[in-house]
This record gives sequence, structure tokens and C-alpha cells, in this order.
Amino acid sequence: MNSREFIDIPVRVKYADTDKFGVVYYGNYAIFFEKARTEYLRQKGFTYKELEEMGYHLPVVEFHIKYFKPARYDDLLIVRTSVDEVKSRAVVFKYEVLKEEEKIAEGKTYHICVNTENKTVALPSFFISFLKNNL
Amino acid sequence: MNSREFIDIPVRVKYADTDKFGVVYYGNYAIFFEKARTEYLRQKGFTYKELEEMGYHLPVVEFHIKYFKPARYDDLLIVRTSVDEVKSRAVVFKYEVLKEEEKIAEGKTYHICVNTENKTVALPSFFISFLKNNL
Amino acid sequence: MNSREFIDIPVRVKYADTDKFGVVYYGNYAIFFEKARTEYLRQKGFTYKELEEMGYHLPVVEFHIKYFKPARYDDLLIVRTSVDEVKSRAVVFKYEVLKEEEKIAEGKTYHICVNTENKTVALPSFFISFLKNNL
Amino acid sequence: MNSREFIDIPVRVKYADTDKFGVVYYGNYAIFFEKARTEYLRQKGFTYKELEEMGYHLPVVEFHIKYFKPARYDDLLIVRTSVDEVKSRAVVFKYEVLKEEEKIAEGKTYHICVNTENKTVALPSFFISFLKNNL
Repeated sequence: MNSREFIDIPVRVKYADTDKFGVVYYGNYAIFFEKARTEYLRQKGFTYKELEEMGYHLPVVEFHIKYFKPARYDDLLIVRTSVDEVKSRAVVFKYEVLKEEEKIAEGKTYHICVNTENKTVALPSFFISFLKNNL
Repeated sequence: MNSREFIDIPVRVKYADTDKFGVVYYGNYAIFFEKARTEYLRQKGFTYKELEEMGYHLPVVEFHIKYFKPARYDDLLIVRTSVDEVKSRAVVFKYEVLKEEEKIAEGKTYHICVNTENKTVALPSFFISFLKNNL
Repeated sequence: MNSREFIDIPVRVKYADTDKFGVVYYGNYAIFFEKARTEYLRQKGFTYKELEEMGYHLPVVEFHIKYFKPARYDDLLIVRTSVDEVKSRAVVFKYEVLKEEEKIAEGKTYHICVNTENKTVALPSFFISFLKNNL
Repeated sequence: MNSREFIDIPVRVKYADTDKFGVVYYGNYAIFFEKARTEYLRQKGFTYKELEEMGYHLPVVEFHIKYFKPARYDDLLIVRTSVDEVKSRAVVFKYEVLKEEEKIAEGKTYHICVNTENKTVALPSFFISFLKNNL
């Protein structure tokens, strides 16, 4: 993480998250990461909903994740969330999933910005400033 | 079921459907039922998508389900689907989940009809006729 | 609710919870209710995980829900959770979903108790006492 | 894909798969891919369930996906599935998601092999032979 500012978002594992192997199903981390980046922005003073109200949306165009150890029912995971990269037309979020201080997974989501007509546009300048302050 | 016409929709259980007890998570039957009523209508010559294009939508306002036996990974379930009741402003679908011919769950979904402004309206008359033909 | 003791569990609506109509998908309330009854028990001093470690599990055998109004993205819902009924071999949880103090949905889950061999058994007596104290 | 043998697995998009933007939620492709690799193996004469019964399991240790265009409600997607790489201790599956013959997403899942004690082991030799025949 180096000097990057991160925020730790807690996620409690539910039965719904697990599969028959007793571990969190690999696809469900995408939901944990959505929660994490939403709460990251909220804690920084910004909500996805506000962005939407201004006519912007940040769809995921790429998603990578590596799983090192399983997460289990009732685990209280920490999703350590940060802004990894900001470009004029894209933003990358980075996530580390911690279980009792051990990193059990890490991933990134790549987002572009679209307007209400679903056209790709540059990130609004106020949002770029906001994100860059958090790099 | 008596004389009601039903259609059998197959559903294969995925890892994603199961939880740590090795059985299908109780909430996931709602997804199976959505698939079943969609395919029921499609096989009868009608799609939800067409209804939408005509400006109608059938939100679920009530949902009941009883679970008799668990479903497990890779089970090929049959969701026996029928129209249970049709009123001017509501339709009820009924579902029986079969595993090797044994009923392991049964449920109902209650739907109203809303228009594009999200106002509750009467079911369109052609749709009522269609549904009544299937009672 | 009358004199029943309830606990209010907050649930923030994610994109993952919504469907193309912009509202929470009807099946996802089952997940909200799982979270709510888990946190209810935890706040009362009891965890599902402990029950499991003692060799018990409380599968859902019946689930009812009525939807009055939709929940939308980023809504901070309250799931007002209580124990509705306790019998020697069953327990019923009750849930009211509130959005800005208005009830938008309500439901119940019916649970039996099984042991590690998946046999139906009586609820352990300490757990019955615990639940009855919360009626 | 070059000379690789692939199998096309159809996936119909449900309301449950979509989010408030009217498109398939980014995390749900993991479920489509699970279905695709399961049916790929089944059509090749092999089931995950059999592997499990022999004491093996293939957990996902890495997952990558790129999204080019959205998928929408009732779309009949094709998940073009193939074995991308086989090593003594790992297998990689590759997926291309097609919508009316246009590629709208592509991804890979990386799997190791674990035994019933959850220890990492070499892929069983018969399974390696089977997979290599499909490269």
C-alpha cells in the first residue's frame, strides 16, 4: 500500500455468502468490493448516489482477484480499500481482504465513467481532484 | 394441481446456489421461481420482455415457500409451474420443486401489474385471457 | 409488535441487491433477514456459530414475505427483528423492513432444529429459555 | 481461440442477474462461468460431482474478467468455454461471452486441486490426460 491512503471496511460473512465447501463463493467477493468502494467514497465525503444524481456512473470494465486463503462463515473480514490509479477517463480501486490481519485475497476493479446516455465521458474534474487527493 | 395445466422447468443446482450446509440456500429458490415463471410464459408463447415493451411489469407483492427436503449440488430439480389464480389486478403463480419425483418444496408468488409510471393498473385484458386459458 | 422485544438491524442497499427496475430484487430480502436474525442473536449474546459448534443448526422450513413499497439503491433500511414464537421443536422470527420509519415489507421465517447428523431434534433447553426471555 | 476446442454454453439473463442500470451486475459473470465450466466438463463426459466423489476439488485461486459491452434482461448469452492451460498442479479455463455473435466479455479462472483434507495436491493423472485432450 505504501503511502496510499486506505480505508478499512468490515464485512461479516453470512450463510448466503458461503458455498458447500464452507467457504465464501469466489463470485461473492465482487459484492464485498462494491460495498467497500461505496463506503470508501462515503467516508471520504462522497456517495455514488450523488454521482448518479449529477448524471454520472462508474461501470466496472475489468475485475481481477487472487484468493490466497478461504473466508468462512461469521468471519469478520476487513476490506482495505484504496484508489490505485486515476486517469482522465478511468479510475482503479484496489482491495486487500484481511482476516485476523492476514491478507487472504486481493483485487482491483477498473472503472470508466458514463453519462446518462450511457456514453463514455471524462471523469468530472471535481471527482478527479477528489480521487487524486486520496492517492 | 388437479386439472391445472403446468409446465416443468429444469434447474441444475450450482455451487453458487449452495451454502455451507451443502444445501441450496433458502433465498435462492426465489431465483429458481423467477426462472420458472419466465420460462412458463415463454413456452406458452409469451415473454416478460414483451409485457415490458407494452409498458407493463408484474412486481412480486407476496412470496410464500415451504421447504420439505434439501436440494444439493448438481441436483437436477424440476420446478412444476402453474397459474394458480387470476384476478383483474393480480395473478398468482404456483411452484412445486421436485427432486427425483419427490416434492421437496412448494411456493407461490403474488403479482400485481404496474405501468411505466409505476402506477398499479388492471392486468391488460389480453393477458388475463391468456392466463385464464391456462387455469 | 406489541410488547415483544425487537432489535433494529440496519441494511444498506447495494447495486448488487437491485434489479433492472431500480428496486431490491424480491429474493434478496431473504439475505437481509438472515443478516437480521444473526445480528439479533449476536446482540442478545448468542451466535449462530456457537450453536453450530454445539452441534445444532436452525434450517428455514418456511418463509413468508409481503412487499408494500420498493427499496432502492443506497437506502438505509432498518430490519426490525423479533422472536415471534417458540415451541419445543421450532422457532419463528419476525421481520419488519422500515424505510424512513415507514414499513415497506414484513415477513417471517420458520426454523426447526437439526443435529450434526441432520436429524430433527428439540431445540436445546438453554436456547429455548434464551428465546422465551425475548418474547 | 485458434485450434482450441471450445463448447458453447447458453445462459439466459434473469431479473436476478441485473442491477439498477438494467445490465448484468459485474459479479454475476462468476456464476455464469461456474455454470459454463461445469457444463463444459459434463459435455466432455466428466462431472465436478464425480471429481468430488473421488476426493478432489478445484477451488478458484484467481479470476480475471474484462467487460466490453453490457448484457441485458432476457438476452440469450453464449459462454464459449475452453481449457486454456493445464499444469501438474493447476488448470486454467477461458471464457468468451457472446451476444448475437459479438464478444461482450472475456475472462479466465485459475484452479488448483485440493484433496478432502483441503491440502493442495497434483491434479489426478486421468484428469490431466482428459484436459490435455481438450487443449
